[in-house]
Parts: sequence; structure tokens; C-alpha cells
Amino acid sequence: VISMPSQHNLVLAIDIGGTKTLVGLVDAQGTIQAQRRLTTDITGTAETHLAKCMEAAKACLIDAGRLKADVSGVGVTVPGLADRLRGVLVHAPYAGWNEVPVKAVLQNEWADTPVEIANDVNACALGELTFGNGRKFNHFIWVTVSTGIGSGIVVDRQIFEGESMIAGELGHVIVEWENGMPCGCGHTGCLEAHASGTAIRRMAERTIAESDRGAELARFIMDCNLDVSAESVAQAARSGIKEALEIYETAGRYLGRAFSYAANLLNPGGIVVGGGVSLALDLLAPAMRKTYRSSVIGESNRRIPIVPTSLGYEAGLLGAASLVYHQPPRMLK
Amino acid sequence: VISMPSQHNLVLAIDIGGTKTLVGLVDAQGTIQAQRRLTTDITGTAETHLAKCMEAAKACLIDAGRLKADVSGVGVTVPGLADRLRGVLVHAPYAGWNEVPVKAVLQNEWADTPVEIANDVNACALGELTFGNGRKFNHFIWVTVSTGIGSGIVVDRQIFEGESMIAGELGHVIVEWENGMPCGCGHTGCLEAHASGTAIRRMAERTIAESDRGAELARFIMDCNLDVSAESVAQAARSGIKEALEIYETAGRYLGRAFSYAANLLNPGGIVVGGGVSLALDLLAPAMRKTYRSSVIGESNRRIPIVPTSLGYEAGLLGAASLVYHQPPRMLK
Repeated sequence: VISMPSQHNLVLAIDIGGTKTLVGLVDAQGTIQAQRRLTTDITGTAETHLAKCMEAAKACLIDAGRLKADVSGVGVTVPGLADRLRGVLVHAPYAGWNEVPVKAVLQNEWADTPVEIANDVNACALGELTFGNGRKFNHFIWVTVSTGIGSGIVVDRQIFEGESMIAGELGHVIVEWENGMPCGCGHTGCLEAHASGTAIRRMAERTIAESDRGAELARFIMDCNLDVSAESVAQAARSGIKEALEIYETAGRYLGRAFSYAANLLNPGGIVVGGGVSLALDLLAPAMRKTYRSSVIGESNRRIPIVPTSLGYEAGLLGAASLVYHQPPRMLK
Repeated sequence: VISMPSQHNLVLAIDIGGTKTLVGLVDAQGTIQAQRRLTTDITGTAETHLAKCMEAAKACLIDAGRLKADVSGVGVTVPGLADRLRGVLVHAPYAGWNEVPVKAVLQNEWADTPVEIANDVNACALGELTFGNGRKFNHFIWVTVSTGIGSGIVVDRQIFEGESMIAGELGHVIVEWENGMPCGCGHTGCLEAHASGTAIRRMAERTIAESDRGAELARFIMDCNLDVSAESVAQAARSGIKEALEIYETAGRYLGRAFSYAANLLNPGGIVVGGGVSLALDLLAPAMRKTYRSSVIGESNRRIPIVPTSLGYEAGLLGAASLVYHQPPRMLK
């Protein structure tokens, strides 16, 4: 395939997730001109995985019929704490990587090309700001609801990182003070422990274990030859199985609690939800909105849009590209 | 009294609270060179009260031996929603004032002098940033714990107002989802309903009403010839009365909950507490810190300083002055 020549430069976007990595070429309109998917290899060093990403980048250039010289910048997202200024992945808990000089490694191959690095959730927020629903807001909150829950805070059309780069831990605000479930962080009652994909799966497992109440849900999942997961519970809820609907209702209520904290504090223009579980936002929304609206002060907070990402499956890849494309902020009137 | 001549210009600061108003002349170092105190007159129009503030300003100039020409700007804080750009007090719920063109009224008297207006809580945050503990932080949260609870969010050394000027409603984040007390805002379980001066007084009243448990507290307050109030309960707690200590412990626990939400979201450099109840921060602190530390993620969040204001009783007046003195932000390294 030989693509049409274009007046636009391309950005090489590398979205390194905990389990999968997307590598792509993205133009200034947010169109993905080529992409490759690979498994995130955490068996070796981060450098080994970055070398594989470079191979995928070359393959993308061939796919798109473009040259290395067409690439005006490289944007990399990492599943952990990133130091933008130094271009270093400080710590990726799941992969076990520490102090990886991502920028230096990539510039061995792409010398003189700007390389930007960011945490994956913050990059999604920036992608939404640059290419998605965030274009409409000066301030908004991006929330990834997936295996875990993370958030990125956009203030004055820029990512707000906080005093030591860990702002946006909405997944660990406590939403259940009395009967909190244990969270991976060591606390109990965190949003992540009550409304993530993992939390939804665990609620379903507990429901199924109570054979009298969970029988119908168990039968549905078995009949469909599925695993117990946030996705299969959503499918069951859409088939009208009451216990599955209740699980999403519970998760939605907890999301509403956390969103109310964020809105009361920050009075954002909107809340944008991404991550796999956001595909079931319709199932979460009734309880989420009800709890949210009864817990925020001010008519403008009550009315703010809570919407799914407009960037879909490639939100992270577009986020990586936006690290290069994002301009110094111009405030909306 | 004739003050020494000074090379510094002065700012006329007007801090209009719900019940009292302070008018003062403040120099660039934050020294108050003269001040007058008056009752906030809410029986008439806002314009009537502003005229009284102008009289007090003239008296301050005489007290300080200074001239109107020495005043380089006027800063006004109002107990409600302020529109900085238009210089208008949009709404002050307690006083019942709406759409007061504060800037225009003051410029009748002080033509060609810049007039800045802000919400009182945000102004305190800016005062702390300009003259107090906030000088050390790029980002911090100011919390006023008084009759009610309000907060001001400083991001990148500027007040963050949110999408419609109502950011910082920490007083209305919900800290008690199960057995929430009713709040003035119409919800139940807000921080303000569980940890404000009013909440502390109500807890004491309930304790006293349970005659078996509250007898000692009731006797102490009666013997000292005091009213039941946050102050008298603090005095009782300092005398070792267990029920009074428990009341502050309860309030401290709820403050810790709300502070944990704010820190997880914003990763601030610090939290600065002002308002009358902050005089009892020592009584609140043990339970507050314990709850806070067990509910935030990240070592840097666990370690952030939670400190009382360094500006004392005049925090609001210095806040009003800082509206004029505050420079475009220069970030700390």
C-alpha cells in the first residue's frame, strides 16, 4: 500500500501498556496512518522492549510508504511514573522497570528528533484535549476505568502533575469508609477496589458463589462460554439479568461518589471516561449520575457532561501522539 | 501618630466578612500600617456598606499619616461569589447581596486606582501565597475552618477557579456516606456538617443532651460561664475532659478524610488551615493525620505538611492586599 503524499508531518506514537503496546504513525489531524500491535515484553529489560518498538516503527513507515525524515517527533506513553523533563520512566510497577532513560534510548535511533514521554493516563487526557471531547474544555478530568482506575487532570488546557508528579490518583480516593474492599495499594475502600474492571469481576464472583442469588448469572456466563469478567457481566446485564445490572449499579454509585469529590474540588468543564469499562458506561450511568448529582454543590457542577472518550481503542496511541502535537495552551473564551 | 515616611506604596485592603469587616493599609512586605474594624452592615444595601468602608479607609490614612496618592491599589474580599474580571460581587448568600458592581462603586471614590475583588477564601489562599507559608509551594490548598468550611486551590502559584468560578468546595465533599448530618447546602454528610465550628458546637450540644455522657462537659462550660461553642469545647478538651477531646477527634477524622481526597487528586505541596477553628489544630491533628496518612497514596502525599496559617487573625485583610500585590506567577524550582 502506498499512501497519498501529505503535506503533514507525522508523529511516531508508542503506547506501552501493561500487557500490549501499540506503535503507530499519527498525523496532525489525529489520523492513524499505520499501526502495529505487540505484546509488552516484561520478561526482559525495558531496553529490549524499546528495541522491538523501533522495529515496529520501521514496519509502520514501510506500511505507510513514508520515510524516517517525515517523522517530526516521537511520543511515548508508559504504564507508570514518568519524568517528562528528564525523559525517564521512573517506575512501572507491573513491569518492574525502574529509571529507564526512554528518551536517550530512542534518540540513539532517532537522533535530533524530539522525544516526549508521559504516563499513559496523563497522555490519554492530553490526547482527548488535542483530538477529542477535551477540545471543548479549559479544564476537565480524564478517568481510565480498566483493570485499575487512574485519572489525568487538565487545568488551563495543560496536564496538571502536582508537586511530585502524582496528581490524579482518583482510583485511590476512598469511596467506602465502612465496608471497604481491599485495594492493591494496601488500603481498603478505594474507588479502584469498588468500580474497576477487577472490582466488577470480583463482585460477580461473589454473587455467583452465593448459589441462590447468582445462579442465573452463572448459567448465562457458562451458556455463552465466557469467563467471569467485566465484559461478560455487562453482556449479562444487557440480557436483563438482575444481579448483573446490580453489580454495574453498585460500581456506578461508587464512580458517582468519586466524581463528586473531583467536581466539588475542581469545578471542571467535564469528565471524560475511557478504558475498557467505559464501553459499559450506559450500564454505569444511571446510578453514577444519581449519586453524583446528589453530592455536588452548585448548578454548574450538577450539569457538567460526563461522557465516554471519543478516541476509542486508540486513545492511548493518540495520547502518545498528542505529547508532540500539543501546543502551548490557548484558553477558550 | 505620624508614621515614618516609607518608599513603599500602600494597598487599601477591605476584607468584608459575613459579620465583620476589616479595612486597612498594607505595605508590600505585608505589614499592616493602619486598620479599622466595623460590623458588616447587611441591613442596608451593599453600596451603603461600601460607603462606610470608604470612611474607614480615610480614617486609616489619617491614622498612618499618609495620603490618598500613596495608595497604589485597592483589594476587596467578599463573602460570596466574585467575578474578578468584571469586578462584581455576583452573590453573597448570607448578606443577601446580588450583582454588586464593587469595582465601579469604589472607583467613584478612587478613580484611576486599580481595584481587585475576590472571594474571601480564595483571597486568603492568595494572601498565604504572597505573604505566608504558601511562599514555599507551587501548589497548595488553603482551607478555612470556621462557622462553615471553604477552600482555595493554588495551582502554579495562582488561584484556580474552575470552569465557572466555584472550584474549592472542599466543605461540601461528602465524608460520611452512611450516617451523614444535614448540611446547610441541602445534602447530608458534607465535611462542613461534620468538622466546622458549627458542627463541633452541635456535637457538643448532642453530647450534653445525653446527660450521663455529657455531664462533665456541661459543668465545665457552665462553671466557666461560657456558651457552648467550638472555642469552649476546645477549652474543655485542653482541661482534659474526655468527651470534648472526642468531639475534636471526630472532627479531625473527617478533616483527614477530606484532605485525603484533595491530596490524592492534586498532590499539593501542602495544606494550610485558617479560620477560627484552626486555633485548635493541635486538638484536631492526631486523628486528622492518622486518617489522612492511611488514605492517601504515594510517599510524597503522606509527607506533605498540614500547617496552620502564618497570617493569623488578619489572614483575610492580607489576602485582600495580596489581590493587588500578587505578581504573575514565577514557579519555584
